[in-house]
Amino acid sequence: MTLIQEKVKQATELLREFGVDCWITFTRESEICGDPTLVFLAPGHVTWHSAFIVGADGRTRAIVGLYDKKGVEETGAYDTVVGYVTGIKEPLLEYLKEINPRTIAINYSKTSEICDGLTHGMYLTLYEFLSEAGMADRLFSAEKIVSALRERKSAAEIGWMKEAVRATEEIFAYVGRFIAPGRTESEIAAFILGEAERRKLPTAWGPATCPAVFTGPDTAQAHYSPTGRVVEPGHVLNMDFGVKVEGYCSDMQRTFYVLKPGETAAPEDVMKGFRTIVRAVEESKKAMKPGVTGFEIDAVARSIIVGAGYAEFPHALGHQVGRYAHDGTALLGPKWEKYAKKPFQKFEEGMVFTIEPRLTVPGRGVVTIEEMVVVSRDGAEWLGRPQKDIFLVK
Amino acid sequence: MTLIQEKVKQATELLREFGVDCWITFTRESEICGDPTLVFLAPGHVTWHSAFIVGADGRTRAIVGLYDKKGVEETGAYDTVVGYVTGIKEPLLEYLKEINPRTIAINYSKTSEICDGLTHGMYLTLYEFLSEAGMADRLFSAEKIVSALRERKSAAEIGWMKEAVRATEEIFAYVGRFIAPGRTESEIAAFILGEAERRKLPTAWGPATCPAVFTGPDTAQAHYSPTGRVVEPGHVLNMDFGVKVEGYCSDMQRTFYVLKPGETAAPEDVMKGFRTIVRAVEESKKAMKPGVTGFEIDAVARSIIVGAGYAEFPHALGHQVGRYAHDGTALLGPKWEKYAKKPFQKFEEGMVFTIEPRLTVPGRGVVTIEEMVVVSRDGAEWLGRPQKDIFLVK
Repeated sequence: MTLIQEKVKQATELLREFGVDCWITFTRESEICGDPTLVFLAPGHVTWHSAFIVGADGRTRAIVGLYDKKGVEETGAYDTVVGYVTGIKEPLLEYLKEINPRTIAINYSKTSEICDGLTHGMYLTLYEFLSEAGMADRLFSAEKIVSALRERKSAAEIGWMKEAVRATEEIFAYVGRFIAPGRTESEIAAFILGEAERRKLPTAWGPATCPAVFTGPDTAQAHYSPTGRVVEPGHVLNMDFGVKVEGYCSDMQRTFYVLKPGETAAPEDVMKGFRTIVRAVEESKKAMKPGVTGFEIDAVARSIIVGAGYAEFPHALGHQVGRYAHDGTALLGPKWEKYAKKPFQKFEEGMVFTIEPRLTVPGRGVVTIEEMVVVSRDGAEWLGRPQKDIFLVK
Repeated sequence: MTLIQEKVKQATELLREFGVDCWITFTRESEICGDPTLVFLAPGHVTWHSAFIVGADGRTRAIVGLYDKKGVEETGAYDTVVGYVTGIKEPLLEYLKEINPRTIAINYSKTSEICDGLTHGMYLTLYEFLSEAGMADRLFSAEKIVSALRERKSAAEIGWMKEAVRATEEIFAYVGRFIAPGRTESEIAAFILGEAERRKLPTAWGPATCPAVFTGPDTAQAHYSPTGRVVEPGHVLNMDFGVKVEGYCSDMQRTFYVLKPGETAAPEDVMKGFRTIVRAVEESKKAMKPGVTGFEIDAVARSIIVGAGYAEFPHALGHQVGRYAHDGTALLGPKWEKYAKKPFQKFEEGMVFTIEPRLTVPGRGVVTIEEMVVVSRDGAEWLGRPQKDIFLVK
């Protein structure tokens, strides 16, 4: 079964589970401003107004512009694919009147960007169509369906992510031998990108900050391109990197210490920071299992960091990973406005999270580790081999 | 001046021209479902809720998550960049109360996908915020502003597009020598992609259909990946391809005829079709100038095709090109539902359009040419050298 066939089938089951009659993904010119859900429903981009309609009764239909018909048909995921020439309104309303769903879920959400692929203009269009058919009051947010579709990962999806993690760990091992005093952040980033290219693996997010490399104190700390800053003995250096395998991402961070002449280990202030991070990651993972919520796990790490005398990190402890480095709805985050309801969503089996606390060692740099775990039946499992020792650079 | 500085300045002027006080681009996690306008406002993707606020009085402010602050600040395009930690609501409302705009344009549109970057969930969030401030009734569509910002192209933007056209023409010339009976569509596409890679030019749209190559009768005709179909003598072969230079696209089609043994020219049925297409392209271009509307131009080509005895093409005559192969709002299209108001928008200087009529020669294949033109002060100019002769393959 292909990914699209698998996901369309899963969607039917989710509709039944959540008691929803019908789910419509409504999009156009998806290369410009496409719904992130489309990748589970169509083999590529669509050009004109397109509707992918899944019913709890198992009936499925796609209505697309004529030239997009053949590609969608060949997915084998839909009972019928309609290709129209002048406009979608007539074939869409005709079908909706035929199936007459009591509830119609559509892809918008205030609180989850991954479930918010319907643009406001497209919402207005659909609302106008359905008003004519007397169905506008049946529309509501598909957040639960889209979240579960992305979050409950199949064995195949987990397998691709494990491969992405393995490749990332391998590249971290290589770059450890490349880093040296005198090298710049940009040179280190170029080396990493070269290793990814050699493996023909795309980066997990935009190459301007994938990898991100920060050496020493006083860097931008995160979300910033590598600079000409030079690695010096005594620096703590961290990097954030990931690749995609079959469209599925890894997202990982590692911390290095650059030895000074005569040193054979990192000094105690660095090691205290590193041990604190390792402990925060481990304890967070131990507390994860189905039914737990993200703010509880975020608090585990946050209190370890603060308890050890460091400032708390100004971001969530971790996020889900999938086809995007930041994927899914449930989040290992504090109860901050910008995270909305995400930290309150209960964990489910198959969710893949990062755990990525950070702290600053004054005068040295930022210590941070980002691991990936999958929620299992009664706990959480590493997707790779977690960093337990600081990587030493001679 | 960088592109972002140029566009933010242009936006201020557009606000004055259209009598709008304030324009807000409101987006989050732009790698997942980003506003296509963001590329003119920020140096890369943003992670958390972000607001880019331009005023008719020339004041500009960006409010972004803390880690996105530095990059946005370095554009030099904003008076102030605010970086928040817990949520955008407070700094956003504080600033809006300070500037107290009478009208606030935001990026949604039923009729223009390129102006429809605001998701419905983000609209609801902004509406809720502004309701608290008593400003929700000041929101309206920024379609005019965003359209003009994309459509009135600067000399720099036109220059990049001309370079993209030149590279595409060069690649068409090379591939003409590669095409031969026995080669497959996929092999021809791979050759074209190799030429683009060799020039380090990204394709103008997704590589699954860029290039698209169709040889002979009974193909999918458009929007479909190259197949294992083999070039045969007597085939009409067409291809659709484009590249990007500095983020700006070309989008062009060319038609080839594969000679049969003993032939030195294409047969009359093919030549009649080819001449009809050339004439349709030329007459359409001649009729273009500022103030004219797209449906008038579409009708010129459509009537030439139909008048010569062919079925009318099931799509618009042409679209604008810019940072996407399909860009802008005004369209050379018929008055069909799916094109909404686009065919009625008046042309302005600086708009770049494709002209791409097509017709089928029974038993041979599809004849189609796609040229690019820019609307000038009193007419339209080719961006490259239009195809006047059918390309013959021996």
